Amino acid sequence: MPDTTADPIANIAEFNFLDGVKVVDFTQFEAGTTCTEALAWCGADVVKIENPKLGDPGRRLRPGLPDDDPYYFHVFNANKKSIAVNMKSDTGLNLVKDMIRGADVMVENFAPGTIERLGLSYDVVKEINPGIIYAQIKGFGEGSPYEKNLSFDMIAQAAGGTFSVTGEPDGPPMRPGISIGDTGTGMVMAMTIASALYRRRETGEGHRLQVAMQDAIMHYMRTNFATTGRTGKAAGRAGSKIAGSQSAPKGLFPCAPGGPNDFVYISTSAANEEHWNRLLRVVGREDLIGNERYGSPRARAEHEPEVDEIVAKWTKTKTKFEAMELIGKEGIPIGPVLDTMELNNDVTFEQRGIMQTMIHPVHKPFKMPTWPVRVDGRPTRLKSSPMLGQHTDDVLRDWLKLDGGAVEKLKADGAVK
Amino acid sequence: MPDTTADPIANIAEFNFLDGVKVVDFTQFEAGTTCTEALAWCGADVVKIENPKLGDPGRRLRPGLPDDDPYYFHVFNANKKSIAVNMKSDTGLNLVKDMIRGADVMVENFAPGTIERLGLSYDVVKEINPGIIYAQIKGFGEGSPYEKNLSFDMIAQAAGGTFSVTGEPDGPPMRPGISIGDTGTGMVMAMTIASALYRRRETGEGHRLQVAMQDAIMHYMRTNFATTGRTGKAAGRAGSKIAGSQSAPKGLFPCAPGGPNDFVYISTSAANEEHWNRLLRVVGREDLIGNERYGSPRARAEHEPEVDEIVAKWTKTKTKFEAMELIGKEGIPIGPVLDTMELNNDVTFEQRGIMQTMIHPVHKPFKMPTWPVRVDGRPTRLKSSPMLGQHTDDVLRDWLKLDGGAVEKLKADGAVK
Repeated sequence: MPDTTADPIANIAEFNFLDGVKVVDFTQFEAGTTCTEALAWCGADVVKIENPKLGDPGRRLRPGLPDDDPYYFHVFNANKKSIAVNMKSDTGLNLVKDMIRGADVMVENFAPGTIERLGLSYDVVKEINPGIIYAQIKGFGEGSPYEKNLSFDMIAQAAGGTFSVTGEPDGPPMRPGISIGDTGTGMVMAMTIASALYRRRETGEGHRLQVAMQDAIMHYMRTNFATTGRTGKAAGRAGSKIAGSQSAPKGLFPCAPGGPNDFVYISTSAANEEHWNRLLRVVGREDLIGNERYGSPRARAEHEPEVDEIVAKWTKTKTKFEAMELIGKEGIPIGPVLDTMELNNDVTFEQRGIMQTMIHPVHKPFKMPTWPVRVDGRPTRLKSSPMLGQHTDDVLRDWLKLDGGAVEKLKADGAVK
Repeated sequence: MPDTTADPIANIAEFNFLDGVKVVDFTQFEAGTTCTEALAWCGADVVKIENPKLGDPGRRLRPGLPDDDPYYFHVFNANKKSIAVNMKSDTGLNLVKDMIRGADVMVENFAPGTIERLGLSYDVVKEINPGIIYAQIKGFGEGSPYEKNLSFDMIAQAAGGTFSVTGEPDGPPMRPGISIGDTGTGMVMAMTIASALYRRRETGEGHRLQVAMQDAIMHYMRTNFATTGRTGKAAGRAGSKIAGSQSAPKGLFPCAPGGPNDFVYISTSAANEEHWNRLLRVVGREDLIGNERYGSPRARAEHEPEVDEIVAKWTKTKTKFEAMELIGKEGIPIGPVLDTMELNNDVTFEQRGIMQTMIHPVHKPFKMPTWPVRVDGRPTRLKSSPMLGQHTDDVLRDWLKLDGGAVEKLKADGAVK
């Protein structure tokens, strides 16, 4: 019988899809780190190359000591290793080149021009290892008028279009509250790398992959570009409604006790008239069933404020969880607005392994979302983000076959830490 | 010399990373279709199995004739094939099972319970093909209290947390204007499938993969969960600002001539004090260089409204493109807020192959975003979304080796169309 006491998630796995894939990881902050973390969740051996002084700047987004805000670093660097190398020393740079020689993938998201200045341009790297998948993530694309500009998530989201479709119809553009410019970009790159690795098993050929955050965001905005195709106009803002939707009720409805996130989203379908009739029964307005004023999706859309008020009058008397229960069981699409604390406190995510607790050598335990895909019913295991240089010895031994004496000498020389 | 007249993008490629991978595609709307489209962009042979009457409901989101709003379908089904099969006939269902027998991947995102009712549960499918990667996308996870509920992008985003972090600090939660609940979920599944295929080259083993939109969204919200780790509170809303940011200026600034999307996002770094000094020069306020009131990131954050006004007074006199040019060239991170029409009209995206025009057998040409990753400097080619049943003959011939007579008989029997 398996010992389930040691592990709160009895059914946990360690995905081995990318077992044996070696990734030299120069990424920092979020877009690049998301890409290599996705590879790590799927089983790749991902080694962060960090400068011995401060490492990935994502380790110290907040002023103060290094690692004073470890959470930001944790969420983007789970399941990775770290080696601290001084790449400004010839010995350090050569060590990294030795790692590249034996690697399958290299990923970087430095500012434009930086990797070349470090001496690891694609031309150099493919000489060392012609079979490597060399992946680069930038803010703006090569050939864009802004290709040399710096970018961060907010800038890429503004320039990629998400601000323009978020916010109230008569208000200014607004930032979506998630860093999709970073995480979304990392994900398309991870998908491309995994596909390239599949092909490479046959051909052994390396490739240079490049993605820009602005371009990746446009990919995630295909729905909005479809709207432009249909209307010939810019896709607009519609608050929490869907612009141009031809049915109602569809939108946010306020719930008791009226806290900042006490709302449910209800989305009756234009294709299923029963949604409306069932909803009328739930909210105690059977008297309106068959009333022509609200008798079709289009008629309800025309009288949307009235329709919304009919529903809101009832939702305000229920908590979002009660509303979810009572409306959801009638087969009407509904979801509560949940905040990160509510999601954090919902034990069902832990029971399913969607949220797991990171046990770190130094920092306190931290619960965070893991890779969301189950394989044969099992989640993959969360492992700690690395301390700066935590795996220097291990990696030099396992990747480069250096013995303890050689490693000590490298440390004494200041090439690694 | 290559013939560049035939192709507006001289340097275009057709990614072959997943060449030879056969995907039986039951997906509809956005989340599932994004997953299989990602596989298709990377070279897989993706065949949509559609019912002969109306096909993927994504073909007819708007009332009226089928295909009256083809754009929505186009953007999620580029580079795929379509076969129209009546799965309610035994012959039709057996044909699909024959396709599954020779396939590498099967993907579905039906409502909970539907694929089982169609007779293609995992237990059935793995009997037919033990080596298949069987992928399922649902709204809520297996084991969630809501596992039987229907979901759409808006519902998944509400329940996954994005609404709770979008909007003004004192306003209601708000929907981010992009369908990240759908497209983001499809992307993590595509990444997992590609990784599973990599491993399968060695083992031949099949797997069941499952992802829920709510769970996938939480993954994309890792930054916000990091905030909760740090503060012990729910991550909040901050309009277009970053909640708890400790530097300024950082945010949206209004530009001439004052249209709904005439704004730039400027993000000076707390780690680079020169950003502020250079910005003062650009906006003609050299007199404030060294002024202690604004002399550190934290001091500026304390006087943020004043700091924003200093910058806005200048940005209001420039268009967003002028501001981008003048501020960007000083190395200060900045991006214009662009809408889908502006992005659509910017020819540099076409020149780089990021946007391409779909030439469809019936519908008018349509420009849309393509897969954003370049391989060896080249974008992949956009091919048309399929008409319903467009490839019935081709697929029956290529996948099942049926000759013309056999196909005619299937059509006469009403099994395919």
